Amino acid sequence: MDYQAILNEIVDEARAFLGEGRVASYIPALANVDPRKLGVAIETVNGEQFAVGDATERFSIQSISKVFNLVLGIRVAGDDLWQRVGVEPSGNRFNSLVQLEYENGIPRNPFINAGALVVTDVLLSHLREPNAEMLSFVESLRCSSIYYDEEVAVSERETGFTNVALVNFMKAHGNISNSVDDVLNVYFHQCSIEMSCEGLARSFLFLANGGVVPGSGERILTSSQTKRVNAIMLTCGFYDEAGQFAYRVGLPGKSGVGGGIVAVIPDVLSIAVWSPELNPRGNSLVGIHVLEQFTTLTGMSIF
Amino acid sequence: MDYQAILNEIVDEARAFLGEGRVASYIPALANVDPRKLGVAIETVNGEQFAVGDATERFSIQSISKVFNLVLGIRVAGDDLWQRVGVEPSGNRFNSLVQLEYENGIPRNPFINAGALVVTDVLLSHLREPNAEMLSFVESLRCSSIYYDEEVAVSERETGFTNVALVNFMKAHGNISNSVDDVLNVYFHQCSIEMSCEGLARSFLFLANGGVVPGSGERILTSSQTKRVNAIMLTCGFYDEAGQFAYRVGLPGKSGVGGGIVAVIPDVLSIAVWSPELNPRGNSLVGIHVLEQFTTLTGMSIF
Amino acid sequence: MDYQAILNEIVDEARAFLGEGRVASYIPALANVDPRKLGVAIETVNGEQFAVGDATERFSIQSISKVFNLVLGIRVAGDDLWQRVGVEPSGNRFNSLVQLEYENGIPRNPFINAGALVVTDVLLSHLREPNAEMLSFVESLRCSSIYYDEEVAVSERETGFTNVALVNFMKAHGNISNSVDDVLNVYFHQCSIEMSCEGLARSFLFLANGGVVPGSGERILTSSQTKRVNAIMLTCGFYDEAGQFAYRVGLPGKSGVGGGIVAVIPDVLSIAVWSPELNPRGNSLVGIHVLEQFTTLTGMSIF
Amino acid sequence: MDYQAILNEIVDEARAFLGEGRVASYIPALANVDPRKLGVAIETVNGEQFAVGDATERFSIQSISKVFNLVLGIRVAGDDLWQRVGVEPSGNRFNSLVQLEYENGIPRNPFINAGALVVTDVLLSHLREPNAEMLSFVESLRCSSIYYDEEVAVSERETGFTNVALVNFMKAHGNISNSVDDVLNVYFHQCSIEMSCEGLARSFLFLANGGVVPGSGERILTSSQTKRVNAIMLTCGFYDEAGQFAYRVGLPGKSGVGGGIVAVIPDVLSIAVWSPELNPRGNSLVGIHVLEQFTTLTGMSIF
Repeated sequence: MDYQAILNEIVDEARAFLGEGRVASYIPALANVDPRKLGVAIETVNGEQFAVGDATERFSIQSISKVFNLVLGIRVAGDDLWQRVGVEPSGNRFNSLVQLEYENGIPRNPFINAGALVVTDVLLSHLREPNAEMLSFVESLRCSSIYYDEEVAVSERETGFTNVALVNFMKAHGNISNSVDDVLNVYFHQCSIEMSCEGLARSFLFLANGGVVPGSGERILTSSQTKRVNAIMLTCGFYDEAGQFAYRVGLPGKSGVGGGIVAVIPDVLSIAVWSPELNPRGNSLVGIHVLEQFTTLTGMSIF
Repeated sequence: MDYQAILNEIVDEARAFLGEGRVASYIPALANVDPRKLGVAIETVNGEQFAVGDATERFSIQSISKVFNLVLGIRVAGDDLWQRVGVEPSGNRFNSLVQLEYENGIPRNPFINAGALVVTDVLLSHLREPNAEMLSFVESLRCSSIYYDEEVAVSERETGFTNVALVNFMKAHGNISNSVDDVLNVYFHQCSIEMSCEGLARSFLFLANGGVVPGSGERILTSSQTKRVNAIMLTCGFYDEAGQFAYRVGLPGKSGVGGGIVAVIPDVLSIAVWSPELNPRGNSLVGIHVLEQFTTLTGMSIF
Repeated sequence: MDYQAILNEIVDEARAFLGEGRVASYIPALANVDPRKLGVAIETVNGEQFAVGDATERFSIQSISKVFNLVLGIRVAGDDLWQRVGVEPSGNRFNSLVQLEYENGIPRNPFINAGALVVTDVLLSHLREPNAEMLSFVESLRCSSIYYDEEVAVSERETGFTNVALVNFMKAHGNISNSVDDVLNVYFHQCSIEMSCEGLARSFLFLANGGVVPGSGERILTSSQTKRVNAIMLTCGFYDEAGQFAYRVGLPGKSGVGGGIVAVIPDVLSIAVWSPELNPRGNSLVGIHVLEQFTTLTGMSIF
Repeated sequence: MDYQAILNEIVDEARAFLGEGRVASYIPALANVDPRKLGVAIETVNGEQFAVGDATERFSIQSISKVFNLVLGIRVAGDDLWQRVGVEPSGNRFNSLVQLEYENGIPRNPFINAGALVVTDVLLSHLREPNAEMLSFVESLRCSSIYYDEEVAVSERETGFTNVALVNFMKAHGNISNSVDDVLNVYFHQCSIEMSCEGLARSFLFLANGGVVPGSGERILTSSQTKRVNAIMLTCGFYDEAGQFAYRVGLPGKSGVGGGIVAVIPDVLSIAVWSPELNPRGNSLVGIHVLEQFTTLTGMSIF
């Protein structure tokens, strides 16, 4: 299949939708991004690479880091992780406290903020230097020079009152072992990771390859664990728009408030899109459109 | 792959779990079912059939009928249907009224009771004799002699106070056009359809075949509509256990309180299980176990 | 105190606020009421009577009947009543289903719709002809010729889908003993009672008089039961505006969607107001204003 | 009325209920209190004083301080205060986050934790040294040598994760102006105030006296403001047991998790009880019983 031609066509046509969404504005580093940036990158399990637009420019991956966080959490804690966090869609906003109160501080899944904070707490209990080890882990996925944007991490910390509320509330329920400040420090650093579409597509490729990094051959997760991470991406990867994404796009994926989305087609490829303008649910408006067109034109879907 | 050998092995081993669940007891017709019934049937898109145990015995398909209901709803109303019901997981019990109140009477998806009642209302607005046409529709999926168990339909009506509450509440919100009694009559009849594992596997096969009934070649849904129904089954097919089912089994499927579950592997096969004992979430305990073993042993999964 | 002069002054001034609220419109009988109607009546425990404006014109008392319902419920069932319904403010809309779902079908208090429906069910279990006995009971409070407006009762039944939902939902939870239709029939008849401000003030006077009807000397409730009914009126009499009414007016009272409000000053008097325009919470806009002015100018309050 | 005899009788009889509740255990200072402590004090607007049991021993007043907090808030901010916090009963636990999320960070009333934190924030915006001024204020109510228990304040801060969550969550909604740490510092100090039953009865007496401190003649609140504070105590003073307290006791009052309760009878007296064992709702079990007996035996009630 001529992925390059398809990407070119989709991106040309998608530019017409620029201007319909709104860039995240709660911290300066996100608010100041050029809203017309648009990039797409594909990497196949056979080693092919395709890209269009701003595919090599780094941006703040934000909640996409929750996938790295979960994978690392599974690596260090195995199935014990699921004593602390569920695998069900929340049906609520990404930062809701309501379910947490009704369900005794156990978050619904690892891709809402509360769940990612619990997984971060697990990392803190198992890793000596979680911030450094997170970077090494992503670099082991054939991505060079991964780093945190410290300015973003500081801004997130200064304005992230809801996240502070979430972690305190879960600590009140006994579901946070480490200090609130330590958990927040690691969590906000994860959100501040900068990567490009190319880097994201490359780093997620092992999820399309049964848990093994193509090229290096390193096994990150077992085949079964890999399928399960993909299943959670499908059911929970887009907050209260997860059903819509499955319905329209039909791929496991994860979005971030920086405008990035990564998705995988098992056994075939991974694809990353970046367009900073968000829809009302907080997911990249043009990004979802691009992925919907991609699965429509290629006929690819897990369904 | 030797599906027959795999089924034999799984079912032998699964019998050990009989006795751990509880048969639905809210109406006599369900309560009186032999809890040790266990059957599995597979039908592939190539026309092969495999079965084990009580695969030809009919049972009450209950909420599995919500898939027929949805497919028929899409056929008569197209995308207009989605003005009346969403595609998001609910994260709540199948009969919860809470979200409905917060969300102005628009149900989250067509597989919770409220959503199925709305789709039923749509059928009533488009079909002259919805009860007869539902039977004809299922029979058109190469299933002979489909009928309602009138005794079950009457029992459901007499004890289904929560469903009566749901439909009245949605009518108060303007999301039910026909009379409450008419909607309930059609809905409870759907729940009372009796089918065997073999019949269920056969009737769902078009969802594994891009919307076309293998054998007859009749197109039921477009390819795109088919993928979307499968996506909704994956994200919403098991109420507040949908995430667990995706995580453990990894297939689009739908369960019923009669103990049946049907699932599809796109482009490959459909599989139906029946074991009346339910887990605390209301899904067949042994049924889920059988399907989890099936995807584990065959390595099949959409992820 | 010159109540007549105070009433005259307040009502003159209150007319300026006519036009700011909206008359209930869900049934024709309420929608067609002249929105500029305004009446006030006072009756003291010493037998004095004061009135101004449309104080002798009958209107639909609607939820004010929930007080008669509760008093009759206490008379027939005593403290057993409180096994079926609570005494806590709901903090929610008068017809909310949310709390009911979280609290297993036990309504928060007898003055939200769900609670009144349960009390009605209790009446049905104790009284041979609850509709007739309700009228006799109100007449025994020195009110002549009390009757139902059958047209209103029928309209309520035809449009009251939320109430039908509530009673079915509570029956699903085992908190309704009689048939849904019987409960609704008695409930909607209660809502349709027509009374004037004078009649309401007179009929509520026993609640300002320790449970004894002044004049006849008949004891309706014990002194302790009377205080408790007054307490429930204060904490729960105005749905999710109960706190505001206590804060601004400072009297136990009960409102109805027909625009009536009755309040009592223990040991002193009862006062009834009627003005059909409602505020956004469903309580008489001018009615609350009149009562606030009354307690401000007279310095009367239970606090 | 012979208050002393009545108190003696009630307290003798109430000792039989000791052992049925549970002392608050979340911080050592509360957990280590002798559970059999029991004291009552009355002070009348005529200057009479009555006491029995441990009425002069100081204990941690905890949430009773929310009344001082509110009164001071009204004094510094007037009606502007009500832009930031409501006057409706919450119908939820004292520390619930659910309503706050649905209602955009505006707490239901000043006597749940969230509401008291907002009022504390208002104090911080108006007062130079809120901790010192709070002590001076209570001392101005004819109470000598009021002080904080710094050990309690520190313990509260170390374990009060839910309160930290609440204030961060409200700051995320823009309803906290000062720093989270400053608000918590003042709030936790208020909770740590130590007073005896005698001191509490004396300090609350102005609320039974139209806002004027008997003896000194100092006006603390206007007559209207005083009634309103009493109204809020009645509807909101006992968390999700406010309706029960109004029903059983019939007085405006406020409880604290240290086992104290203060109540007022307008124009007559104030009464304070202390018994550390709490009922499941977090209010003093014997304290409520004592007050219920007091209003039953004296026939006093606002209803």
